[in-house]
Amino acid sequence: MNNFVFYNPTKILFGKNQIQLLGKEMKSNNVKKVLILAGGGSIKQNGVYDVTIKTLSKEGIESVEVWGVRPNPTLDHANEAIKIARDNNVDAILAIGGGSVIDESKSIAAGFYLDNLWDVFEKKALIEKALPIYTILTLSGTCSEMDPFAVLSNEAEQKKWGMGSPLLFPKVSVIDPSIQMSLPWHQTVNGGIDAISHTMEFYFLGTNEEITISMDEAIINTIIKSIDALQVDSKDYSARSNLAWCATLALNGNSGVALKGGDWASHRIEHGISALHPEVAHGAGLAVVFPNWIKYCASENPAQFKRFAEKIWNCDNIEDAVEKMKSKFRSWSAPTTLRDLNIEKSEIEAIADNALNIGNLGAVKPLTREDVIKILEFSY
Amino acid sequence: MNNFVFYNPTKILFGKNQIQLLGKEMKSNNVKKVLILAGGGSIKQNGVYDVTIKTLSKEGIESVEVWGVRPNPTLDHANEAIKIARDNNVDAILAIGGGSVIDESKSIAAGFYLDNLWDVFEKKALIEKALPIYTILTLSGTCSEMDPFAVLSNEAEQKKWGMGSPLLFPKVSVIDPSIQMSLPWHQTVNGGIDAISHTMEFYFLGTNEEITISMDEAIINTIIKSIDALQVDSKDYSARSNLAWCATLALNGNSGVALKGGDWASHRIEHGISALHPEVAHGAGLAVVFPNWIKYCASENPAQFKRFAEKIWNCDNIEDAVEKMKSKFRSWSAPTTLRDLNIEKSEIEAIADNALNIGNLGAVKPLTREDVIKILEFSY
Repeated sequence: MNNFVFYNPTKILFGKNQIQLLGKEMKSNNVKKVLILAGGGSIKQNGVYDVTIKTLSKEGIESVEVWGVRPNPTLDHANEAIKIARDNNVDAILAIGGGSVIDESKSIAAGFYLDNLWDVFEKKALIEKALPIYTILTLSGTCSEMDPFAVLSNEAEQKKWGMGSPLLFPKVSVIDPSIQMSLPWHQTVNGGIDAISHTMEFYFLGTNEEITISMDEAIINTIIKSIDALQVDSKDYSARSNLAWCATLALNGNSGVALKGGDWASHRIEHGISALHPEVAHGAGLAVVFPNWIKYCASENPAQFKRFAEKIWNCDNIEDAVEKMKSKFRSWSAPTTLRDLNIEKSEIEAIADNALNIGNLGAVKPLTREDVIKILEFSY
Repeated sequence: MNNFVFYNPTKILFGKNQIQLLGKEMKSNNVKKVLILAGGGSIKQNGVYDVTIKTLSKEGIESVEVWGVRPNPTLDHANEAIKIARDNNVDAILAIGGGSVIDESKSIAAGFYLDNLWDVFEKKALIEKALPIYTILTLSGTCSEMDPFAVLSNEAEQKKWGMGSPLLFPKVSVIDPSIQMSLPWHQTVNGGIDAISHTMEFYFLGTNEEITISMDEAIINTIIKSIDALQVDSKDYSARSNLAWCATLALNGNSGVALKGGDWASHRIEHGISALHPEVAHGAGLAVVFPNWIKYCASENPAQFKRFAEKIWNCDNIEDAVEKMKSKFRSWSAPTTLRDLNIEKSEIEAIADNALNIGNLGAVKPLTREDVIKILEFSY
């Protein structure tokens, strides 16, 4: 195994009714006034908002609210929220939502102390301080609830980029799988495919990290089983909770132990897609790109790709495995081609250029512009 | 899945030469003077001591040393170390050793601020403050390097008891598997069996926690593979590092997610053995007790025991699985009977009484005194 550092101080409160405990957690960390960040109004319909306000006020914690975080959250919205956070002198942020809301909350937490938030994404500034972050997760997938990373879209420059800092680990995250029971089907699927993809970004670098690799297989197999079960009964709590915890494990450090930081080419190609097509959900873009990345790169570390075929798809070669994977995604009504995403063939070069605009791409196989174009052509 | 809380803030530096980074980590946390705690002199032979002193002095960190921690560490020795820690006004503890040394370091860290350390074990006092703990692990098994628990022997009262507090998570732990390459064979095996046992203490409570259960299977199977490989070549770094990380995962919270805190009857029965026979290594005692606990309790949660037989031992019933397990332990030269430990049949009742002296025993099956005696008779 390669050397590695493992560090993840986020406290997770997992399960039914755990939101009620959040006020106490925040009070014990001396939070007095919090910025609540959220997307649309769904948390007002499903009761999450009310329970949250109750646990905060029970502990005497004041709050100010910012709504309207979009899927593929934007720099502009984050900057507006930073202004409100400063004007109201908050001392913490509480993100209520999925990965988009939590990612934006990290940008706000860091940006609160910065002159120009985007500088961090451009690696022109360092995060030396950040507001403490609390989260209530409403959609499992990104693992933003238990990782130190954030992705943000700079619309003016058509850049969807990421950043991270140990200061951005959420302090406490609540994962109550029961509040995900009423999610639209495609959101459950997108979250699951995102989590499978996170695991795969590490997996294919495997050589002799037996424990990480076999845990990764446990994660991927459990996600597939859980989504299949939810397709039969979307209120299956056992499946919902296994899926939720798998999505957290897929990027909280465990799935990547000793795997050199991962590959991330598929994610970056997907960011190229959704930078140009903000209407494309991240998980949907990954469902299209990742199987074709596998097909294109399988000769690089053949033993590991063969193991993937055997342990996940119960077949003995990667071509069949990719077909089975696509067919599984289709059975979940996920897209598997760029056409399914309503993207034209003529856009492939622009997507490739966008994916490459942050520098070198890929670790299993370092990808040139031509490689990315071929993967996107496979995906068409 | 049952509700659970996950929290583990220990930072792990894993791999070759990682000890060198420790001084910097301690300095960044403002450590000025540290109590170094160790067992015998092996760390002076294998170079670990020299590298440690070098990284500390490079950062200007002073140290005072306490040697002579025994396997099954004692209250008396911990109390002596607490006095030295106070007299020298240290502001942190650095444990260099296996579980015994790290467990004792936690007792010292808490006892530094207590009138009577043993009160914590008797649940008559609470830990409200503790010195920060740093560790350099020299023998994988207990996971004390990444958990908040400590076991200590009160020889005067013949009690080997445990305690825990979130304040006792080590701040930073170094796990360099290469320094374990020169361990005596039986220590490697004892550590591995301890780690398998930790995983099993949770596993048999499984019902619908698919991800935790399948990760636990990954841990147990990887440990077995790794010990087998080390029996062929004790310097196999890949096996050594997989074994080390498995031992950490077996009790750092991951293996027990949603499994109700575990069973722990086998551990408590083993503590009864080594309270009366301090010469018995913890892993050796577990090798004797656990297979017989399985045999005795298998009718309680039969589907899970059957799954264990299939996924770990490749057979379809638990009786065969237990025989395969014992035979595997014997192939590693581990003991599998009380006789192998030189314990007389006449001592069984005293061991049972000792195991029960802390209260109720067992979660898979709550055990009476008669149950414990039967398990120990099976073990004879």
